Amino acid sequence: MCRLSCDLYSLTMVQGYWKNSHNPQVVFDTFFRLAPFEGGFTIFAGLASFFEELAAFRFQDEDLRYLHSLGLFQKDFLDYLQHFSFKGDIYSVKEGEVIFPREPIMRIHGTLIETQLIEALLLNTINFQTLIATKCARMYIASQGGTLVEFGLRRAQGLDGALSASRACYIGGASATSHVEAGRQYGIPLQGTMAHSWIMAFANEQQAFERYAALYPDRSTFLLDTYDSLGSGIEAAIAVGKRLQQSGKRIGVRLDSGDIQYLSMRVRERLDQAGLTDARIVVSNELDEMIIHQLVSSQAPIDVWGVGTKMVTGSPDAALSGVYKLAAKEQNGTFVPVMKFSDNPEKSSNPGVKQIYRYYSREGVPAADLIALTQERVTQEEPRIFYHPSLDYRHFFYKPQGEIRQLLTCYMRQGQLAVELPSLEHIRATTLHNLAHFDDSYLRIINPHIYKVSITEALRKCKKQLVPSTKRIGS
Amino acid sequence: MCRLSCDLYSLTMVQGYWKNSHNPQVVFDTFFRLAPFEGGFTIFAGLASFFEELAAFRFQDEDLRYLHSLGLFQKDFLDYLQHFSFKGDIYSVKEGEVIFPREPIMRIHGTLIETQLIEALLLNTINFQTLIATKCARMYIASQGGTLVEFGLRRAQGLDGALSASRACYIGGASATSHVEAGRQYGIPLQGTMAHSWIMAFANEQQAFERYAALYPDRSTFLLDTYDSLGSGIEAAIAVGKRLQQSGKRIGVRLDSGDIQYLSMRVRERLDQAGLTDARIVVSNELDEMIIHQLVSSQAPIDVWGVGTKMVTGSPDAALSGVYKLAAKEQNGTFVPVMKFSDNPEKSSNPGVKQIYRYYSREGVPAADLIALTQERVTQEEPRIFYHPSLDYRHFFYKPQGEIRQLLTCYMRQGQLAVELPSLEHIRATTLHNLAHFDDSYLRIINPHIYKVSITEALRKCKKQLVPSTKRIGS
Repeated sequence: MCRLSCDLYSLTMVQGYWKNSHNPQVVFDTFFRLAPFEGGFTIFAGLASFFEELAAFRFQDEDLRYLHSLGLFQKDFLDYLQHFSFKGDIYSVKEGEVIFPREPIMRIHGTLIETQLIEALLLNTINFQTLIATKCARMYIASQGGTLVEFGLRRAQGLDGALSASRACYIGGASATSHVEAGRQYGIPLQGTMAHSWIMAFANEQQAFERYAALYPDRSTFLLDTYDSLGSGIEAAIAVGKRLQQSGKRIGVRLDSGDIQYLSMRVRERLDQAGLTDARIVVSNELDEMIIHQLVSSQAPIDVWGVGTKMVTGSPDAALSGVYKLAAKEQNGTFVPVMKFSDNPEKSSNPGVKQIYRYYSREGVPAADLIALTQERVTQEEPRIFYHPSLDYRHFFYKPQGEIRQLLTCYMRQGQLAVELPSLEHIRATTLHNLAHFDDSYLRIINPHIYKVSITEALRKCKKQLVPSTKRIGS
Repeated sequence: MCRLSCDLYSLTMVQGYWKNSHNPQVVFDTFFRLAPFEGGFTIFAGLASFFEELAAFRFQDEDLRYLHSLGLFQKDFLDYLQHFSFKGDIYSVKEGEVIFPREPIMRIHGTLIETQLIEALLLNTINFQTLIATKCARMYIASQGGTLVEFGLRRAQGLDGALSASRACYIGGASATSHVEAGRQYGIPLQGTMAHSWIMAFANEQQAFERYAALYPDRSTFLLDTYDSLGSGIEAAIAVGKRLQQSGKRIGVRLDSGDIQYLSMRVRERLDQAGLTDARIVVSNELDEMIIHQLVSSQAPIDVWGVGTKMVTGSPDAALSGVYKLAAKEQNGTFVPVMKFSDNPEKSSNPGVKQIYRYYSREGVPAADLIALTQERVTQEEPRIFYHPSLDYRHFFYKPQGEIRQLLTCYMRQGQLAVELPSLEHIRATTLHNLAHFDDSYLRIINPHIYKVSITEALRKCKKQLVPSTKRIGS
């Protein structure tokens, strides 16, 4: 059980705010700086899991005793923590939405103390599931909408690393998982084939396949590569498959090693020669979107992709670089924008309370996003200047042609969910709808077109006012 | 809560064994095929966590109702699962041990059913913690035994991905974590500094640092890069640091962006000029072993390394490729070795019930490992032929010069722990002892020397007998 899911510095800072009676209303933004996988898009995921964790985020007696034992925290502060729960407001884009770097995908309103305490919990949940949903969506695109089955439990990072990966993969377009707990908790369809050990436990492959088929005639996918895929493996599968065919059953075969393209073509030939034209070919073995892309473009006859490690860990990008930055704080009753500069210019944040507007073409295809301050009026009538978020000389005029949608909506008000959360099935459908409606050039898995995310003139001015005039060169 | 931490195919196979009354005693090996990070060594971790999960691995009523709802499992089998618990024996190398590819680092003895059911649980725990302990040990080596603080919660893969990463990092040589729950559950020392938001919450840096110092005079590490590290940042830190110095307190400063080498040298100069020669410099920002190696070899004046993403996710290698393969099965009362071949020769397994022997030099430095069948006698007196595990023509004679240690010992007998597990502190000391006693050439983080892992003549013969004589070429 994970309870004190926060960093020590959150607690020490929060005690500082509390002791200094410095607890203004603030707004934090969550955003990331770079799309993962050198990709052109990112799929937002993890929100419902975050709300679930947030509801459980309480300091229990045992936790408080532990904190006391550290010698860092004073009794009155620990008493305060004892009654802590998050009571702020949360705005967010929806799960399954396509998002881009620098967009404030979640906006947290609350007291400085409560917003600071939930930082790590929020980032942990959102960063990971968003990474994995995006990875899976890339494989889905590479497979041209094919059937992906997630097999990652044994290689995932921790047990709930596996569980939340299964959830995120389903959001990203996977059709099923092998992970039984993910089936139970999230209702994700379960699938599985057989392990090499099943075959090795019997005298030979044919016996092993026969025994399996006797028990699961509707779910028989025979693993071919325990000894020799194109030898004993495929022949045993065909022998058993032909018998099953007589009772109207359809088999599958799985290839888990060797050259998948070569083997899948040879296996398809043998299956077809044997009259098993409806037999499915399942492949696995360290697949990722590039390998799937290669196999699909070479027309390898593959029906199902079993994907594990790369999908559930997001390899080679092990983390989304999502951050949580202060955007505004209350002063004398109004919100004042604040901004972090940093010695890396691209680490500067966008100040103020903001909304994301997505502009659609007449045909309903997203054309560009605009980040505006919430007090700005953004209407369909007005043409606008879209400014590059950091390169001032880059801007363009844009006259709205179709719909404009606000991506951030209120999910939580005063610590209570303000809307009914969609089902996982619904979220998955949202992703697939988005992937079908975005221009392909942004979804391309290799060398994608960069979707334009701009800021309004008012936000640009607000930023300029906050840049210190004496910012040193070379530091 | 993660309960049904298994793959669907484990359950369907196990029902198959159960229905076929095919439940012999078997031995499974856990091993991996390639050291992570293109490295020369791997640190074993995760065993105690696995035993904890194993003790909780039970099928509860709700789980059984869910399995029933899938329409795949028969009532008598579900009744069997209701009373399932693992009752086998487990042999393992110890946590903190240096291990190598193809070595059977864990050996599971039990019935086919029980050993098959725990596969994913075991691999998930061992693969991940071993990966992370190794990653951390690499950073520890790169830092030349420096102080590493793990800051990874917000970028880790799931909440217990974070928690078990904190544990594994501590085993791998980290000195502390920022993750409060890891402190509470595992007793790992906690550390933390401050976030940019602390500084942005006050009027300016000096005020923010002063307020922090007032509350935590013994733990003041000031973050310099919110606005301008070498301008307002360092000057404010020095002003507050000099005041703290008068009461005998020592400050730290943290750099979280920009060119760490340049900034750390400039900051050290300014601190020294100001008489704060004992002030510590903490750095962070996407550090990994290569960046640490570069900074150390350039003599950047860094005292503490704050490491997050790369350490807790093992990036760029998101997973250890540990597998779980059947090595022997009971036939007529004796164990018969079995072997998987696969279409990738390096995916072939080593058959039989095996032990790992580590040969030491006279000076107590590990010289080579030998994998032998357990029935073989391995003594200090005999010179031996060490065979390459797959390349038959490569072998060498070796006469023992020092101690020979067996790496696998019995941890669990009939489902009960057979030994008292060492404390986490003790495990960490084991790692550091091992790192201090292995030849540096194997521990090198770039282009390491390959440590020799060989098989005995008896094991080689056993393998040869199992290779099918008709193995096709080109498949």
